[in-house]
Amino acid sequence: MTLALGLHGGCGTLERSLMSEEAWAQSRAHMGAALKAGWAILAGGGRAVEAVEAVVVALEDSPHFNAGYGAALNENGRHELDASIMDGATLEAGAVCATTRIRNPIRAARKVMESGRAVLLTGAAADDFAAAAGLDIVAPDYFTTQRRVEALAKLRERGRLGTIVAASEAEKHGTVGAVARDGAGNLAAATSTGGFNNKPRGRVGDSPIVGAGTYARNGVCAVSCTGQGEIFIRRVAAYDCAARIMYGGQTLAAASDELVQKILASHDIGAGMIALGAEGDPRAPFNTIGMFRGWIGAARRIVVGAHEDLHDLGPA
Amino acid sequence: MTLALGLHGGCGTLERSLMSEEAWAQSRAHMGAALKAGWAILAGGGRAVEAVEAVVVALEDSPHFNAGYGAALNENGRHELDASIMDGATLEAGAVCATTRIRNPIRAARKVMESGRAVLLTGAAADDFAAAAGLDIVAPDYFTTQRRVEALAKLRERGRLGTIVAASEAEKHGTVGAVARDGAGNLAAATSTGGFNNKPRGRVGDSPIVGAGTYARNGVCAVSCTGQGEIFIRRVAAYDCAARIMYGGQTLAAASDELVQKILASHDIGAGMIALGAEGDPRAPFNTIGMFRGWIGAARRIVVGAHEDLHDLGPA
Repeated sequence: MTLALGLHGGCGTLERSLMSEEAWAQSRAHMGAALKAGWAILAGGGRAVEAVEAVVVALEDSPHFNAGYGAALNENGRHELDASIMDGATLEAGAVCATTRIRNPIRAARKVMESGRAVLLTGAAADDFAAAAGLDIVAPDYFTTQRRVEALAKLRERGRLGTIVAASEAEKHGTVGAVARDGAGNLAAATSTGGFNNKPRGRVGDSPIVGAGTYARNGVCAVSCTGQGEIFIRRVAAYDCAARIMYGGQTLAAASDELVQKILASHDIGAGMIALGAEGDPRAPFNTIGMFRGWIGAARRIVVGAHEDLHDLGPA
Repeated sequence: MTLALGLHGGCGTLERSLMSEEAWAQSRAHMGAALKAGWAILAGGGRAVEAVEAVVVALEDSPHFNAGYGAALNENGRHELDASIMDGATLEAGAVCATTRIRNPIRAARKVMESGRAVLLTGAAADDFAAAAGLDIVAPDYFTTQRRVEALAKLRERGRLGTIVAASEAEKHGTVGAVARDGAGNLAAATSTGGFNNKPRGRVGDSPIVGAGTYARNGVCAVSCTGQGEIFIRRVAAYDCAARIMYGGQTLAAASDELVQKILASHDIGAGMIALGAEGDPRAPFNTIGMFRGWIGAARRIVVGAHEDLHDLGPA
């Protein structure tokens, strides 16, 4: 029985010199707490799909990541949140997109999966579904933090000045995700995001798309992606990782590295993913200056990182 | 230079004994006209992506198929339309979901693709994008035909009577799609749908999801799917077909047949697809009693079918 758990908090980390020690310490603590929440489920005999949900809920509730509380604002200054979850044991999946009132979109994705009525629900219908399912509903401005308001204002100011309107990497790719392997060998993956600051209204990225931003299949791999979603959709990135293993005989290491460093990088985008192989071996490739990431593996220690170096937060 | 063009009009054809000769004659004529519209583009040196758009526009405008005019009604008696398009030459793609006012959703998908700002737009934002792009905007009831109103009423009546609320196969899977290969060897695919009668509000199926309902890649294949979308999403069906060819060395025939007859059928759903191989060889597997389908291949004749037998409609 090899339990394993991994997360990412987006490949849009700031340069080390621009990240305050306080912000990094908090991000580190929140990643550690998220991993602990998921690990408690795995160690208690819970299922992988429950563990990834718990990890993502914790990251959604942290203001340091671009999902749930603290999510990015779109071009209209509103939040439109996307999430998906997949159970590698059954290939069941659930997802929501363009939600505006669900405190934890990943919980709604799980409820959609369990409903059996749909895989993907969009917009107000997803909000209403979540409310009917008894999930926490919040006012749309619950998600708004000062950091995102300032980031959007800065982008708009740049737009007015006629300079290139581009989000910094840090604002672009704050998506969160988790992958897990439980004691029965089941894999699961989950992803949640606010998209990117100043994104077009109604734009849906790869995070709620099974096969693009999220994929899990027992005996193959579990994958959650971060980066410019449009390219991940066009490259069917998460499933491509699995297909390379299933049909091409690649290892997870080769498949995920080739995908991130070669295929996705060829589009000149920031890209990263957290992945587990069939036996729980973690991989966290990224082609940006950093990626918030962490895992608990065979050594049962909590390891997190933002740039190249890793921090050991102690035993799980 | 091998030009090739194929379409499907859904794998939810009625049993032969239940399909009136008039309805079948009209469906046949509309498929023939759709193929001619696409072929004129290919024969004139146009691109595959233009041809699949033209074919799908023609099918959207026909009341005999579940896309555009004549689309299915959801549980609230409303239309929510989905479409996607992919250019196999560039792997660019565009899609819209849960649209309510765009006369031809496939045109909006193409505009999204060309905008470069997104791959997938949802809901009212997609409608507004299409309007701003100059596309035909209609009142939501433009799409409504007597046939769909009666079908929904029948489903609701069954629901009230406590019997199983299940759409007939004919009401379920009327999605339309097209695949093409142009003179330069470029492949493209496009899909458009109204979902299924009585579908949950906000439910998004596989049709607007690149990799699930639609996929095209030069040198590999072009695929458009029809059937219960949730399973196609979970199986990442359209891209799985490509991955089996690229990584597994399967032929298109083997890949598409195995997918439809074994993988998708294992979920006990109706499933079908139209596909072209790298050189334009058409495949149209389905596991239902019929599938509206047609193509113009190397023989340059228009061939259409609903059940097992095929009709030759003359030279392209």
